Amino acid sequence: MAAAKLALSKSSLQVVGAVDPDPKKSGQDLGKLLGQEPNGIIVSSDAAKLYSELRPDVILHCTSSFLPRVKEQLIQALDAGVNIVSSTEELLMPYHSDPELARALDKKAKEVNATLLGTGVNPGYAMDFLAVVASAVCFEVNGVKCRRVVDAGTRRLPLQRKVGAGLTVEEFKAREAAGGFGHIGMEESVALVGRTLGLELERIEQSLEAVVASQEFQTPFLTVGRGQVAGIRNIGRGWKNGTSLVELDLTMAVGSENPGDTIEIVGEPPIKMHFEGGIPGDQATAAILVNSLQGVVEAGSGLKTVVDLPPARIAR
Amino acid sequence: MAAAKLALSKSSLQVVGAVDPDPKKSGQDLGKLLGQEPNGIIVSSDAAKLYSELRPDVILHCTSSFLPRVKEQLIQALDAGVNIVSSTEELLMPYHSDPELARALDKKAKEVNATLLGTGVNPGYAMDFLAVVASAVCFEVNGVKCRRVVDAGTRRLPLQRKVGAGLTVEEFKAREAAGGFGHIGMEESVALVGRTLGLELERIEQSLEAVVASQEFQTPFLTVGRGQVAGIRNIGRGWKNGTSLVELDLTMAVGSENPGDTIEIVGEPPIKMHFEGGIPGDQATAAILVNSLQGVVEAGSGLKTVVDLPPARIAR
Repeated sequence: MAAAKLALSKSSLQVVGAVDPDPKKSGQDLGKLLGQEPNGIIVSSDAAKLYSELRPDVILHCTSSFLPRVKEQLIQALDAGVNIVSSTEELLMPYHSDPELARALDKKAKEVNATLLGTGVNPGYAMDFLAVVASAVCFEVNGVKCRRVVDAGTRRLPLQRKVGAGLTVEEFKAREAAGGFGHIGMEESVALVGRTLGLELERIEQSLEAVVASQEFQTPFLTVGRGQVAGIRNIGRGWKNGTSLVELDLTMAVGSENPGDTIEIVGEPPIKMHFEGGIPGDQATAAILVNSLQGVVEAGSGLKTVVDLPPARIAR
Repeated sequence: MAAAKLALSKSSLQVVGAVDPDPKKSGQDLGKLLGQEPNGIIVSSDAAKLYSELRPDVILHCTSSFLPRVKEQLIQALDAGVNIVSSTEELLMPYHSDPELARALDKKAKEVNATLLGTGVNPGYAMDFLAVVASAVCFEVNGVKCRRVVDAGTRRLPLQRKVGAGLTVEEFKAREAAGGFGHIGMEESVALVGRTLGLELERIEQSLEAVVASQEFQTPFLTVGRGQVAGIRNIGRGWKNGTSLVELDLTMAVGSENPGDTIEIVGEPPIKMHFEGGIPGDQATAAILVNSLQGVVEAGSGLKTVVDLPPARIAR
């Protein structure tokens, strides 16, 4: 929604169509769906038809976090020779979770001379791209530590739900066991950092735990009681020879103190980069998706990661 | 020197030759000149001969800050089809100071399928590239403010001399009037930021003033007496419609308090990035030059700026 609104507001971009598999949205005016004036762009449920009729330069693809769920959508767009900027977290570094699919997507994209990029703020920027940027001024890099603390109370309701805010610890554990809970893309961030900085990681793992509220918090959407779950702490690690070389430490919880992003390069010289108050996730994600469109259109073909392209450039 | 040493230390790079126009260095062993064991690489004064004999993938070009002084050197390397990573400050954004030469270099580089890049830490990273990186997560950008404070007392003697440390205010003024004094590349940084972020700057200007020591400072190389020049403050500004949209504020002075780099995007959302203690200039400059080599070899042809390429990636 935010990305579509932003794209519509940019004079350098022309939004020519919209696709949503939800039959309730199909046939509706995109402007109206976004709570704006009607703009004559009618949402379609038939992506292939839209691609062949409109021949877009690029699509902004925001459907699911998981590769298996978007695989067919990506192939469909590539079949039509369309460039893709996707928010699918697992597409940040598909060589990690599904190397075979990654190679197939790269091959296909090259055949049709299109570019495919997974990006976002996290994964895609805060705990991976910025680590690569910070290390550009180092003689040598021996490790990376990123710490991102998000006050989930300032975020959208879906994010507050995604981190379990307001659940009891028992409910949290039950949902955690069922999977699909928490932050998606942590291992991809570790893998991207490890590969780009040549750290030759042997093992990537992550841990997830509930952050329990020590006092009651109210957000515009819900209440977190004392002793209930305020959010998550998700730590990703990349190991070599028994040492954790990459450590990405993410807390997203209602009431988090000192929200901020810190990117630390353990190396020579050591580098420490800090974002005061943190990179605001909701806005920043929409922004980086839209700001990546032009670069993806201009890039050579293939499956790219965020570190393979010039930094996303603000769309006018 | 530092860049050559670093390149020699990297297993992913093979140093095949060295050129220095200084006849005293010609014929000497590069390792010995660098204070290391001899390595059999004999410094030559004949660049053209070296290029044709050794056919290097890329040269690391560190000779002068100014475009007119390096123009022939760059053309000579391009004539041989060699990629170039250069520390020439004015080459960061040659479209600013000499658009005609910039277009000619771009044309020539494309003809020979080579890439030409000017980079470094400042200009090239701290006050320009990072501003572009920071703005990638913004909906809109209305301005950029960077502040870099360097304690020149921790830097090499050439830098301490370059900022006038230890001069009287009168000596400083006399040398300033003679030109070639202070930081080179400020206007290039402003121009690069303005162009990349689409700020449509109408006028770029800079000011230079002496920072006067309020107490005596000793560096490993010299003494700055109270009332003498400790260094410089150099502010670059880019204007549109009477408003300064880009403001790059650089202090390099012996005894500077709170050294650090701050990059602030005036936009939506606002972004503030800070480097604790600052990006260490001497090491970082050598590092980013060496770390840019691989990317320049892999890039498509032409004259590039740092924002046209993926971030420099640590060389192994």
